[in-house]
Amino acid sequence: MTQNESSPAIKIIPLGGLHEIGKNTCVFEYNDEIVLLDAGLAFPTDGMHGVNIVLPDMTYLRENRHKIKGMIVTHGHEDHIGGIAFHLKQFDIPVIYGPRLAMAMLEGKLEEAGVRDRTELRTVRPRDVVRMGSSFFVEFIRNTHSIADSFTIALHTPAGVIIHTGDFKIDHTPVDGEAFDFQRLAEHGEKGVLCLISDSTNSEIPGSTPSERSVYPNLDRIFAQAKGRLLVTTFASSVHRINMILEIAKKQNRVVSIVGRSMLNVIAHARNLGYIKCEDSLLQPLHVVRSLPDESVLILTTGSQGEPMSAMTRISRGEHSHLKIRPGDTVVFSANPIPGNTIAVVNTIDRLMMQGAKVIYGREHGIHVSGHACQEDQKLMIALTRPKFFLPAHGEHRMLIKHAETARSMGIPADNMLIMHNGDVVEVSEEAIRVAGKVPAGNELVDTSGTGMVNSQVLQERQRLAEEGIVTVATAVDWNGKLMAKPEIHLRGVVTSLERSLLQKWVQERIEEVLSDRWSDFAQYVGGEQVEVDWVGLQVQVERELQRVIRRELHCQPSVTLLMQTPEEPVKATDGRRRRRTAAQVAF
Amino acid sequence: MTQNESSPAIKIIPLGGLHEIGKNTCVFEYNDEIVLLDAGLAFPTDGMHGVNIVLPDMTYLRENRHKIKGMIVTHGHEDHIGGIAFHLKQFDIPVIYGPRLAMAMLEGKLEEAGVRDRTELRTVRPRDVVRMGSSFFVEFIRNTHSIADSFTIALHTPAGVIIHTGDFKIDHTPVDGEAFDFQRLAEHGEKGVLCLISDSTNSEIPGSTPSERSVYPNLDRIFAQAKGRLLVTTFASSVHRINMILEIAKKQNRVVSIVGRSMLNVIAHARNLGYIKCEDSLLQPLHVVRSLPDESVLILTTGSQGEPMSAMTRISRGEHSHLKIRPGDTVVFSANPIPGNTIAVVNTIDRLMMQGAKVIYGREHGIHVSGHACQEDQKLMIALTRPKFFLPAHGEHRMLIKHAETARSMGIPADNMLIMHNGDVVEVSEEAIRVAGKVPAGNELVDTSGTGMVNSQVLQERQRLAEEGIVTVATAVDWNGKLMAKPEIHLRGVVTSLERSLLQKWVQERIEEVLSDRWSDFAQYVGGEQVEVDWVGLQVQVERELQRVIRRELHCQPSVTLLMQTPEEPVKATDGRRRRRTAAQVAF
Repeated sequence: MTQNESSPAIKIIPLGGLHEIGKNTCVFEYNDEIVLLDAGLAFPTDGMHGVNIVLPDMTYLRENRHKIKGMIVTHGHEDHIGGIAFHLKQFDIPVIYGPRLAMAMLEGKLEEAGVRDRTELRTVRPRDVVRMGSSFFVEFIRNTHSIADSFTIALHTPAGVIIHTGDFKIDHTPVDGEAFDFQRLAEHGEKGVLCLISDSTNSEIPGSTPSERSVYPNLDRIFAQAKGRLLVTTFASSVHRINMILEIAKKQNRVVSIVGRSMLNVIAHARNLGYIKCEDSLLQPLHVVRSLPDESVLILTTGSQGEPMSAMTRISRGEHSHLKIRPGDTVVFSANPIPGNTIAVVNTIDRLMMQGAKVIYGREHGIHVSGHACQEDQKLMIALTRPKFFLPAHGEHRMLIKHAETARSMGIPADNMLIMHNGDVVEVSEEAIRVAGKVPAGNELVDTSGTGMVNSQVLQERQRLAEEGIVTVATAVDWNGKLMAKPEIHLRGVVTSLERSLLQKWVQERIEEVLSDRWSDFAQYVGGEQVEVDWVGLQVQVERELQRVIRRELHCQPSVTLLMQTPEEPVKATDGRRRRRTAAQVAF
Repeated sequence: MTQNESSPAIKIIPLGGLHEIGKNTCVFEYNDEIVLLDAGLAFPTDGMHGVNIVLPDMTYLRENRHKIKGMIVTHGHEDHIGGIAFHLKQFDIPVIYGPRLAMAMLEGKLEEAGVRDRTELRTVRPRDVVRMGSSFFVEFIRNTHSIADSFTIALHTPAGVIIHTGDFKIDHTPVDGEAFDFQRLAEHGEKGVLCLISDSTNSEIPGSTPSERSVYPNLDRIFAQAKGRLLVTTFASSVHRINMILEIAKKQNRVVSIVGRSMLNVIAHARNLGYIKCEDSLLQPLHVVRSLPDESVLILTTGSQGEPMSAMTRISRGEHSHLKIRPGDTVVFSANPIPGNTIAVVNTIDRLMMQGAKVIYGREHGIHVSGHACQEDQKLMIALTRPKFFLPAHGEHRMLIKHAETARSMGIPADNMLIMHNGDVVEVSEEAIRVAGKVPAGNELVDTSGTGMVNSQVLQERQRLAEEGIVTVATAVDWNGKLMAKPEIHLRGVVTSLERSLLQKWVQERIEEVLSDRWSDFAQYVGGEQVEVDWVGLQVQVERELQRVIRRELHCQPSVTLLMQTPEEPVKATDGRRRRRTAAQVAF
């Protein structure tokens, strides 16, 4: 069978979310038409100095912007929508379809970033089907997750139906009563699903994820035991959890004050859209609740992950301007630390305790459950959809492997699944699934100012600076190879007990030695007259010497940089053709 | 009762190990006599750029070195003996008593550091009692822990008996058959213990810590299932674990190769002293086992915590020169990640899997148990010793608090316990326990070269450099306020897409502007003649201007440093009394 006769093949190109948690971004492509599914961000890991946000490599999308027909959003978490504004800064996306809550949050983000006019936002409801381009029909299927209004996607393509689970858990008793639409999944399973792309986050964990509702009685009991004020922290986007906390607060006659920008933001959207239902009087600003008796106050804050600038972290440091811990306060962490945040969280807990708060944290209290499917739930997804091909997504390597093993245990042949990497061009048709190519993949790093992209060279420089510091020497050399002034030396981040004057003396001696011993190697003469100086070569030579002497004397390995100023015009310049290079060209 | 008539009081001054895990160091003082108990190190946390080792603040010991009568070592873990060499570089310790294995390891460390002659090392055996100074008798009581040959200490003082548990777990079936000496503890409890200082590491965990022996059947089963080579990693100091691994290897006809410096080191000492018993033929170097069939090889390595330079980490990166992963390899992590190491460990696991290894990790396999007592074990320690006063030690804040709660539940009054901080001078006598003062406490940070101490200013500079990078400008100004040469500019770790020449131009313009507009503010004239220039003031002024313009143009906040070279002697210098300050004095 030649290429032309074979059945149609869809390209699936994950740009983020594989071998990592975060920046979920997936491309579906057929016949020069691209549909995007989510565009998330990730947070920087160790060594990404000065980086604020991590985005996927967008090269492929920049180069194929003309193919983009639109984007599908599955739900409103940052690792699924947080990158969209950055995409829109680089190319238009004609239309974005998504659930109401996610679209409300997204609209705010796009306005803030000044790119609201680069796309059209369209809200969809469960079981809506929309056409995108000439080849794709997209069906939105209600699922259950830790944020309200979350979708699994059925992508109808010329090659067949591809189910992308988005993030999901199996919650048979969802807080908002919006049940997982197993019927639609089962119907697809009955008719035939070409490929299932499924959430692998909890694939290492046996059994089922408990229902979000299971935390209610535990929170209820713990809140009831608190004698003084209650401070509760959870993920700002955990709309169901927040709903329960507000409900229990009302039942126990506590007024609630929301603290923290992202929490205020999500709750405002969720209330507008009816995902959070509570009367206005329940929510009061901080300055109002301050005058109420402690036992009638609940403060709901951000900072469950020990984020440095979050409200709870600042409270724990005693640095929150409007909120200080008082004896009798009970602080409840209704969230588990994400790996990597553990130290920040326990340090926050310790500081809160030192300030006199009673802190309730840890798994044994049953006050947090995951929003992602465990092994038995992942099996149900496979059982309902009965896919021909299977692609584990949304997870680190070992999670993808475990998820594939789970799929194998349910009878999906090893040849019918792939462990994808970001940037893989996966081609799936009725016949086969294979990696057909590779597009640029990796990280684009947005710096803390939000305006610049940090490249790997800058990161390496910052790592070197952080580890050993930098020594900079400034010197000015005249046309005769003499110092015009005393060299200056500057140390930053360098460990030394050495006398400054001594180091300065050594540096000056070294420079003068090189100038007197090696000047003739760099100065060019024509007929006895000096016509040109190789300032670059000289600078390299002196810098190398200084590096040697400085590192030896300081007993450490700082970066050593020489800034050599050279005369604007040679004193004896007579030759108009002279090409003059300044030393700093190599240093910059 | 006046001070003179009151019963004698012992001072207990913890210098490390409280509100942290690591650098356990404790001072006992009576009548100008000091006995030290352990001197450990800690490893750097986030933000301690370029720091290799963290030590306690040794100011108090430096200033009171004449009082030091000796040191007690409880066991050979780094967080208990790793700081001793650094203490000995600063002051002598007449004698150090400790168990055989710890003393063998310590001797090597002291020789390597060139301070072996600064102390006398004396090995003690269980139930030995030694006199230290005129007031202390020290009794060594066998306990059970993850390293062999570990002691709990009974310190007989004029105020009464103080029990310091050291690190312990309650292991009724220790691998080496050396049982916890409950009899001596009980005897002390019967006669009367003034104060118990006890290990709080696992005070948040209910129940009892399983016996080390419980991992044997699980390792045995997992090893038996491995078809190809076995690579096993655990803590280098876990002598009991290593013993079991060697025993199973022998039973299953695998030859063992040890990889990793610290593992080789500990095993050599432990074999010499008989704590690890195995015939020479079982252990073979890597080049020998390379030629053996895969199924008869077990490689035991360091790197269970994902330490960057460890053998297992380098293997996972494919960077180990003698050892590459082959298909069919099984890698076993017989250790749980310490909080803070989780990301490094799972990344290592992911990389090993990507190279084709099967990796066995995680709690569900039962291949690691803790070396520290859980709540029920901590209760047994209190029950056996029946102390009047109780001091939870060795733990972060919430662990200390939980341990105190456990002690409260057993009837120790709240007034009879304290939550200590490093540097507290705790005075305990028959009458009372109280914090009587404070000595300097905190961290002394040893840099990666091992020679220098990193102070907090250097760390702050490094943090700033790491986050935003640095811009350095060199300029040379003559006695008339004119530039002697074109200023040079150097960027390191700075994000910008700006043209270098443009930035250079702006910088030069800015400098020339300040010089022309403000020169008269900094130059001093006597009778119309310029006699002095305030170079420091000028430098500050120009640097401030440059910082403003550079940060504005680059849209980021790098450190900005100006190195201003000034003429050696003023051209028109006539006044011999002129006090000349160079600009760089403020920059350095």
